[in-house]
Formats: sequence, structure tokens, C-alpha cells
Amino acid sequence: MSRSHPSVHPVNFNAPPSPSTIPLDENDLQHNPPTRIRMKELQGMPGTSTSLALRSLQFSFAVVSLAVMATTSDFPSVTAFRYLVAAVSLQTLWSLSLGVVDIYALLVKRCLRNSRVIALFTMGDGITCTLTFAAACASAGITILIGNDIDSCAQNHCTRFETATAMAFMSWFAVSPSFFLNFWSLASR
Amino acid sequence: MSRSHPSVHPVNFNAPPSPSTIPLDENDLQHNPPTRIRMKELQGMPGTSTSLALRSLQFSFAVVSLAVMATTSDFPSVTAFRYLVAAVSLQTLWSLSLGVVDIYALLVKRCLRNSRVIALFTMGDGITCTLTFAAACASAGITILIGNDIDSCAQNHCTRFETATAMAFMSWFAVSPSFFLNFWSLASR
Repeated sequence: MSRSHPSVHPVNFNAPPSPSTIPLDENDLQHNPPTRIRMKELQGMPGTSTSLALRSLQFSFAVVSLAVMATTSDFPSVTAFRYLVAAVSLQTLWSLSLGVVDIYALLVKRCLRNSRVIALFTMGDGITCTLTFAAACASAGITILIGNDIDSCAQNHCTRFETATAMAFMSWFAVSPSFFLNFWSLASR
Repeated sequence: MSRSHPSVHPVNFNAPPSPSTIPLDENDLQHNPPTRIRMKELQGMPGTSTSLALRSLQFSFAVVSLAVMATTSDFPSVTAFRYLVAAVSLQTLWSLSLGVVDIYALLVKRCLRNSRVIALFTMGDGITCTLTFAAACASAGITILIGNDIDSCAQNHCTRFETATAMAFMSWFAVSPSFFLNFWSLASR
């Protein structure tokens, strides 16, 4: 991280202390930060309303996926379905936590553009995103095997498996923008 | 893309013609030659030996996965295995093409740090990476279903399915650094 533009940023960090710019009130610091050009206000980053909307979507889809899969009686007999339940549970908890952080940040109008926070969120998003996608793909493989390849939907809850899988994919679709926006802002700071 | 550091980079682009007359920052002179500041030499980026090594790994793992899966007689009966064959074939072609580009760039010592080229490679890496990972996960789901859940390895080529899946995962592991390095250099340029 520190290797990106090592020579460019210090100039900006060292520049501000001219006496006329020091007595700034808090509003000024929030809106025209002379020392903070490194992290830009980008919709979708933590603490923005877009981020909150994305977190809500991730959470909703993951909860629906979890609920639908958990109501089938035979999901524990298939490893991939058990894994899907575990992955979307983790996704639910992660999205809920970050949604609460976003609500807090929006309520107190606090800036969340700290690079360590962004790095933490990016890692978490990357991990949950990968796990949810892997679980959705594995479940999709099994659902297609049951439904198309061996054609035994009569004895199985194909519709519920398909719904749970689709919702897990939707949750992954909603996590990806969060991950890439955070990664981008981390790299371009 | 153009919104990142709009005020910092143009100065560097206009600077080079008479370096001796321009008061450059000390750090600037130490770390970056004035004419080449926009895209840094980063191992793993197109045209470097690390990139070529990564491409070779991706290609090898994908070819092994494809060969092992294609030698099983019953892979066409399962959608996920057919999809794996398609995905690793695409991965093979993509890695081979970019490997050739890397070899060419290394031979003629030509710089491949053009942002459009990097954007194209990043998109291609992202797509093949996602497809290979999805195929590997779907195959893993089915392989575990056959091997553990319904315990019918006697009638199936479990070992070959597992090998092909593992090789697809390895190929994905090798594509990920290429993708993230390209994405990082695109964002931090």
C-alpha cells in the first residue's frame, strides 16, 4: 500500500501548514480539507447512503437465502447446502454489522475515509464475497444436477434450492460493488 | 479513472522536457524517473517476468484440469463438469494469449503500462477468474456429493473429478494475483 505514489503524497501532506489556513472550523475541514485530498467522497464507500443501500440489499438477499434453505428438511444431507447456510449466515452478520456502521456514520455525519478502516472492510467484503459466491456456485451445481441431469425434482425441494441459490447469487452481486469500490479507493488514495 | 489525483499528475506529465531546470522534490528524484511516473514497474504487471510466471502457472493448471476431466468418460452427463471443461478451456486460451504477449514484451523490452491495455487485461482476468472459480466450486460441490454424501465413488471417477477440480482451483489461485495487481495498478495510476 505504501508503495503507491510514495513521492507524490508527502508533498500534499507537507504543504498545508501556512498560517492562514490553520484556523479552520469543523465544517470547513469536512468540506474543503486541504490535508485530505487522498480519500475522495465516493458513493458506495463506507458511511455513504449508497453503501447503506448496498448493505441492505446484501443483508436482505442473504437472509432470504438462509430462510429458504433452512426450511427445507433435507438440506443437511448435502454438504454444499450446509456450506451455503454457513456462508449466507456469515454474509448476513457481516452486512448487518457494516449496515449499522453506515447508519451510525450517516447519523453523526462522521467521515469513514480512514485507510485502515477501508482496508479492513475491503478484506471482509472480499472474504464474504468469495465464500458466498463459492457456496452459490456449489449449490447451483447440485441443484442443476438434481433438476436437469438426474431429473429427480419429485423427491427433492428443487424450487426452494433454486430460490436459495438465486438469492445467494443476488447477495454476491450486491457485495461485489462494495468490495470493488473499497478496493479502488484504497488503491487510488 | 481520470478523477483520481487530477491535480497531481498533469504536473508530472508536463515536467520532463527540461528536468534540470525544474525544482523536483527530493523523494521524486529518488524513487521515480520524471518521464515514467504514471505507471510504475510493478512485478506481476503485463510484460514482467512475474506476470509470465503467473501466466505459465495458470495455463499449466488449466490444461491439466481440462485433460483430466476430458479423459473421464462420463463428464458430459453432469452439467457442472461440462461447464468446468468450457471454463478451463477459456482460461487456457486466455492465459496462453497473455503469456505470448508477455514473452513478446520481454523479448523486445517494450513497456506494457498503457492504461487501456491494463484495463483490457484486468477485465479479461476478472471474467476468466470468475468463470474458473465458479466452475471449480460447482464441480467441488458435485464431487463432494458423489464422494461423501451419497458415497458412490465405486461407479464414478472420483479421483479424476477431484484432481480436475483441484487443478481448476489452482488455476484460479494463479489468476487472482494477476487480476488484483492489474486492478491495483489501474486504480493507483
